[in-house]
Amino acid sequence: MQRALSVHRSDGARSNFPNWYQAVVREADMAEISPVRGCMIIKPWGYGVWELIQKELDKRIKDAGHDNCYFPLFIPLSFIAKEASHVGGFAKEMAVVTHHRLKTIDGKLQPDPDSKLEEPLIVRPTSETIIGDAFSRWIKSHRDLPMLINQWANVVRWEMRTRLFLRTTEFLWQEGHTAHADGHEAMEETLRILDLYREFSEKILAMPVIDGEKSANERFPGAVKTYSIEAMMQDGKALQAGTSHYLGTHFAEAQNIRFQNETGELTLCHTTSWGVSTRLIGGVIMTHGDDDGLRLPPTIAPKQIVIVPMLRGKPEDADVLGFCHRLTDALSQMKVYGQPIRVLFDTKDVKSADKRWNWVRRGAPIIVEIGPRDVANGVVSFMRRDSLRDGDKVKSHSMPRDEFVAGAAGLLNQIQATLFAEAKNRLESNIRSDITSPGALAEYFGAGKDDDEADEFKGWVRAPWSNPTGAALAGIEQQLKSLKLSIRNAPMDQDESHGPCIFTGEKGVQDILIARSY
Amino acid sequence: MQRALSVHRSDGARSNFPNWYQAVVREADMAEISPVRGCMIIKPWGYGVWELIQKELDKRIKDAGHDNCYFPLFIPLSFIAKEASHVGGFAKEMAVVTHHRLKTIDGKLQPDPDSKLEEPLIVRPTSETIIGDAFSRWIKSHRDLPMLINQWANVVRWEMRTRLFLRTTEFLWQEGHTAHADGHEAMEETLRILDLYREFSEKILAMPVIDGEKSANERFPGAVKTYSIEAMMQDGKALQAGTSHYLGTHFAEAQNIRFQNETGELTLCHTTSWGVSTRLIGGVIMTHGDDDGLRLPPTIAPKQIVIVPMLRGKPEDADVLGFCHRLTDALSQMKVYGQPIRVLFDTKDVKSADKRWNWVRRGAPIIVEIGPRDVANGVVSFMRRDSLRDGDKVKSHSMPRDEFVAGAAGLLNQIQATLFAEAKNRLESNIRSDITSPGALAEYFGAGKDDDEADEFKGWVRAPWSNPTGAALAGIEQQLKSLKLSIRNAPMDQDESHGPCIFTGEKGVQDILIARSY
Repeated sequence: MQRALSVHRSDGARSNFPNWYQAVVREADMAEISPVRGCMIIKPWGYGVWELIQKELDKRIKDAGHDNCYFPLFIPLSFIAKEASHVGGFAKEMAVVTHHRLKTIDGKLQPDPDSKLEEPLIVRPTSETIIGDAFSRWIKSHRDLPMLINQWANVVRWEMRTRLFLRTTEFLWQEGHTAHADGHEAMEETLRILDLYREFSEKILAMPVIDGEKSANERFPGAVKTYSIEAMMQDGKALQAGTSHYLGTHFAEAQNIRFQNETGELTLCHTTSWGVSTRLIGGVIMTHGDDDGLRLPPTIAPKQIVIVPMLRGKPEDADVLGFCHRLTDALSQMKVYGQPIRVLFDTKDVKSADKRWNWVRRGAPIIVEIGPRDVANGVVSFMRRDSLRDGDKVKSHSMPRDEFVAGAAGLLNQIQATLFAEAKNRLESNIRSDITSPGALAEYFGAGKDDDEADEFKGWVRAPWSNPTGAALAGIEQQLKSLKLSIRNAPMDQDESHGPCIFTGEKGVQDILIARSY
Repeated sequence: MQRALSVHRSDGARSNFPNWYQAVVREADMAEISPVRGCMIIKPWGYGVWELIQKELDKRIKDAGHDNCYFPLFIPLSFIAKEASHVGGFAKEMAVVTHHRLKTIDGKLQPDPDSKLEEPLIVRPTSETIIGDAFSRWIKSHRDLPMLINQWANVVRWEMRTRLFLRTTEFLWQEGHTAHADGHEAMEETLRILDLYREFSEKILAMPVIDGEKSANERFPGAVKTYSIEAMMQDGKALQAGTSHYLGTHFAEAQNIRFQNETGELTLCHTTSWGVSTRLIGGVIMTHGDDDGLRLPPTIAPKQIVIVPMLRGKPEDADVLGFCHRLTDALSQMKVYGQPIRVLFDTKDVKSADKRWNWVRRGAPIIVEIGPRDVANGVVSFMRRDSLRDGDKVKSHSMPRDEFVAGAAGLLNQIQATLFAEAKNRLESNIRSDITSPGALAEYFGAGKDDDEADEFKGWVRAPWSNPTGAALAGIEQQLKSLKLSIRNAPMDQDESHGPCIFTGEKGVQDILIARSY
């Protein structure tokens, strides 16, 4: 049977992955590009996923002791200018507000020259500077520490090449900002959050990740250390899915965030920041999607079970509708993950075959189809989106009605586990550690071959290195860049002994992951 | 006993209301002004209230069939220019993005002239135009209608004089946008939402309101009809707390929102929009606050019960802490409004008297104080924030521990009811309907007296009018403005017969509310 999407992940020799991704986003009705350059419209099904991500993550952030706040969208230019390395990292890509009024001049609506701002305002690309300024006022004594703040907000970074969810000029995220009495505590916070992101990603998104430290050149502008979680997409590329930064005293110095310690001395705070964004939705799509469209983990599926009545314009239709109504009610009484199961009875005036494929493409975990025969036999026929097909054929299951209701939560758990296991297996089977020289790396990643072949699935390479800095590091990154590669991170919890550095042959001090990435 | 705030609502002759409001916001730690002109920082206690408002309102909006989406922050200038009356209403107060990069020139960071946008972007003051553009693509057939969309977002309107929560350059809100097949359905939606806002305001915020239609000159730019809910603050002024607009086909024409009806004709949609914002928090403060600070309705109190241990650095302290821990656990097991009771055991290293007054100022509905004697007797001593004092003296209640736990939900319900009844009584007792001429109106509202007296509590006037339009209406509004008055709305569900128009003596066709306002 034909696939529900017209574009597949690959047609054998050639990868269609970017086109497939676009098709999934479109056909699952998640989001669309807007008439505003680089900005997206997140549609109900996509926004529903984001709301569930927010709910689960927000709970974890609060349970870890953080309070939500809201800070201004605009940042005065002078704030940005204060932290030099921060400027370097962000100054090139920000939306600048220069006027506060429009006026019709010569018949054309335009910014009123008389409304020019004395100091331009930047639309926040991130909020370290404006939140740091608040911290400098809020923090006086060691009793005020740690200060643990989080914000859910929109941010803007002027991007040249955009892709829905993965890189857009405006996106939605949470940004945590904390201040601590010393570096040790701040590092603990940085790593606590990294682990929180890992657990969240694996448990809620069913997306396995590798957590580790970014190289010196890949740090957040102004950070002392940057950590990331990296997920493997189905084209073998890495997606940086979240970051956690230890900022040392850089921002505290620039913004005068000091506290009186227990002996009365005025001391600089150590700060952290960390965030994940709507990019996670792109990660979910590229981790779980298949050639029939999206597959959603039940934890973040806006509808976990969708019921499609098979109506034929005949008298039996009334029985089918009645059966579906009662089934919807019964399922809604059941709980999964401590919440009522999210059930939709799809009564739209659309052909039932179209409804089926619509929900397949949108990735509803369980799609129930009820016809007169099911009603007569008291059974429920359904498809599992995690294992839709047997070969090319769509698999339909059938189960006595009460058994289905009683087992629905268990079935959703199973689907969640299957999706995670599949992705985990992909990640674990596709990290090579047998590539030990720049030459082998270049050969493996197809230097010199044409672009199509270079886009084949390659996975990641894990290799020891000597952790160089300065010009040596820059040279290595340049070399990797020519292969379209980058260092993703140095995974946490490594053994102490390492082979020789893949780049220099010197003594290796840690392993790093090398990959193509988004 | 002294009041917990240094600034009171009035000192007898003279109203301190604006200063009192500022003091409550500051002392309850709700929000503060930011270094960005006109923008506020919403602090954890204030943001916690907003989150609860969001949760309750979001549920109602979804239950009424609306889907949440997210649309871009920026709106192309040309979109704004399309709807002429919309331009007139908003063009004067918008943040305009003109550049997308900063550059250091002559040692100074500034907008890079090479990054000037071909078309300036407006930071959304509201989203009719950008959402209407999406509707024009999404809506094709009558099967796509009604289209029911909501968005939670930040918006920006350049305000000259700002006041925390009540009027700020950036604020948070929800904006609903719907499209319908005909005007009848769209009007039904407009009024359904107006009623939803009224019910929400009364039940959740304990803030009684009067719902009604705004006069022609007070309509939303581009609307055919605008409705509002109006609440009476403790200084007698009206606060417009939410609006619902029937937009007719104005935006549909400007943005080409058409559908094929059942007979195949291409037809214009009728649209609506409606919103409430963080302004509601200002309304809650000015409705319920007293001279000891904020009083929060339990429904939206981030902590409904706060437990303060009375520690003396003595061995009994351990018993007190143990008792408090067990009490916190027991209360957290209880439910109110279908959710676990939100209890905080305040273990901060601060004097217990300071804690008490801190929670009084923040408006926690029940403040429990536990000392060794309470532990010995197995009782709970507590204060009710809705009725904190008897005369000047603070009232403390005492109750057997198990009885307190079992009755906690009931007590919270009582507090909610008391706050609502107090506000409802204030509203109902302070609408005069015995003022029947412009002269009487001017005399009552103190024309010609000095400003202090003019700020005395006056309440509202309800009077019949002839519902004039054009120059006649403009004249009346000018006359009212000179008395600092305005027409708030024409309340819903009026009798059919009316006395003569208060302004002209002609036949009255409906009653209107006249008041000072925020």
